[in-house]
Amino acid sequence: MSEVKKMLEKDVSRRSFLKATGIGLGVATSALLFGTGVAGAQTQGGVVTESPLPYAELDPEEARLRAHAAYFRAGCSYAVFYALLSMLRDKVGGPYNQIPLRMLGYGRGGAASWGTLCGTLNGAGAAINLVASDADTNKLLGELIGWYTITPFPTKESDDVAAAKGYKYDAKEYMTAALPTSVSNSPLCHASVASWIKLSGFPEASNERKERCARLCGDVAAKTVLMLNAWKAGTFAATFKVSDETAGCLSCHSDAQVGKMACTSCHEPH
Amino acid sequence: MSEVKKMLEKDVSRRSFLKATGIGLGVATSALLFGTGVAGAQTQGGVVTESPLPYAELDPEEARLRAHAAYFRAGCSYAVFYALLSMLRDKVGGPYNQIPLRMLGYGRGGAASWGTLCGTLNGAGAAINLVASDADTNKLLGELIGWYTITPFPTKESDDVAAAKGYKYDAKEYMTAALPTSVSNSPLCHASVASWIKLSGFPEASNERKERCARLCGDVAAKTVLMLNAWKAGTFAATFKVSDETAGCLSCHSDAQVGKMACTSCHEPH
Repeated sequence: MSEVKKMLEKDVSRRSFLKATGIGLGVATSALLFGTGVAGAQTQGGVVTESPLPYAELDPEEARLRAHAAYFRAGCSYAVFYALLSMLRDKVGGPYNQIPLRMLGYGRGGAASWGTLCGTLNGAGAAINLVASDADTNKLLGELIGWYTITPFPTKESDDVAAAKGYKYDAKEYMTAALPTSVSNSPLCHASVASWIKLSGFPEASNERKERCARLCGDVAAKTVLMLNAWKAGTFAATFKVSDETAGCLSCHSDAQVGKMACTSCHEPH
Repeated sequence: MSEVKKMLEKDVSRRSFLKATGIGLGVATSALLFGTGVAGAQTQGGVVTESPLPYAELDPEEARLRAHAAYFRAGCSYAVFYALLSMLRDKVGGPYNQIPLRMLGYGRGGAASWGTLCGTLNGAGAAINLVASDADTNKLLGELIGWYTITPFPTKESDDVAAAKGYKYDAKEYMTAALPTSVSNSPLCHASVASWIKLSGFPEASNERKERCARLCGDVAAKTVLMLNAWKAGTFAATFKVSDETAGCLSCHSDAQVGKMACTSCHEPH
């Protein structure tokens, strides 16, 4: 029982907390029974901490499977958030049990189907921010977004899982065929989906497009876990750089804008 | 104490819960002491519900002040999320006390400063999703995003608060001057900030640009509260429609893309 393990690890701080409040064994017992972590470093007077929550190394391939299946329940943003948070519930428990997983549903289709930030990146951002400091969140999410813009999706890894009939998280029958891949050159849902539709010929409403987005959820969830594992191990290093073309634009225009999106995906060069 | 009030309101379900688990007064007492809502309709075996959480009518002008001040602590996305959630903690308590408010920090600058979805809309989306069903979230957030794209920011209301030295949520001295306004024609941070910089002449790093974004946080937080209050009262009706120009594009291209962003903000008409 992960909550018990965590509480034992936190024993010193928990004991001083119980001592400070003058409340004894009754509270500790009920906290153990309910597994809500009401005592310990993650709460103060019944309110959750505003410090990063504990992260434990996760399995990227398990994250891939959970995200893929979750996409069909409540969309892309929920899918990636659910994959990471449900695994942190299993491994760490405590405060993760009190964060509603459905909360990130709004990110679907680039936020209420407006086509802005790809929901997979939105869901990943929320999960990253829960475990990392703000400064580390900027680095990790910035790198993840950069990687997204230059990676052909769905990846070969996700096609291989499909071919091996590995997407078996529920009773549903999933497609097993490999899917065409496209590079979005953008973190926007609109651009990502449109580029894949243009390349593949499958329309937005097709089952193939939905399966493409489900595999993309798995790809982003797995990548996020790999990045967080490396960060936890102290070996994470950001490598993404904007293209030379975009760097050229920003050498004059950085005062006039916010962002790292490829300029010529919207603007004519001049 | 709102948590006590809520637990009393939930007394019947709580009593049957305690009866069912065979646990008695000790747990109820410690739950009251800690105010974590471990018993009641919002938790099941120590895990928060995956249904929408209770919403109580909020004060839009209070939301404006909280969001404006919070922007200077951790950015735009945190600001709007913080404004709504901190007020729901005050009025409803319970499960809202267990959701880390810093979680939405990643949305700053359009997600780790990538310039995508304006963080104010990201923070609002998360807050809306916590209280509303997925279908209602799509309607409410979709409308909020539409409103954002056609509204001159910062609004006159936010300038009036500044002129009256109303932004006094902490010891900081805030600007009192009215600021130039611009219409983004886009929900993207990049486009929103760039259009304001172009119109105002203030660069990205200026205090005026930061104050503009802080007032925008207040504007979006206040609008979100007004919309949620109307939704709660059963009087919310979506009114936003894409422009005739965009509707014209979509009449042919809807199968090939996701989104409602104005097409000609990136694409040449053909």
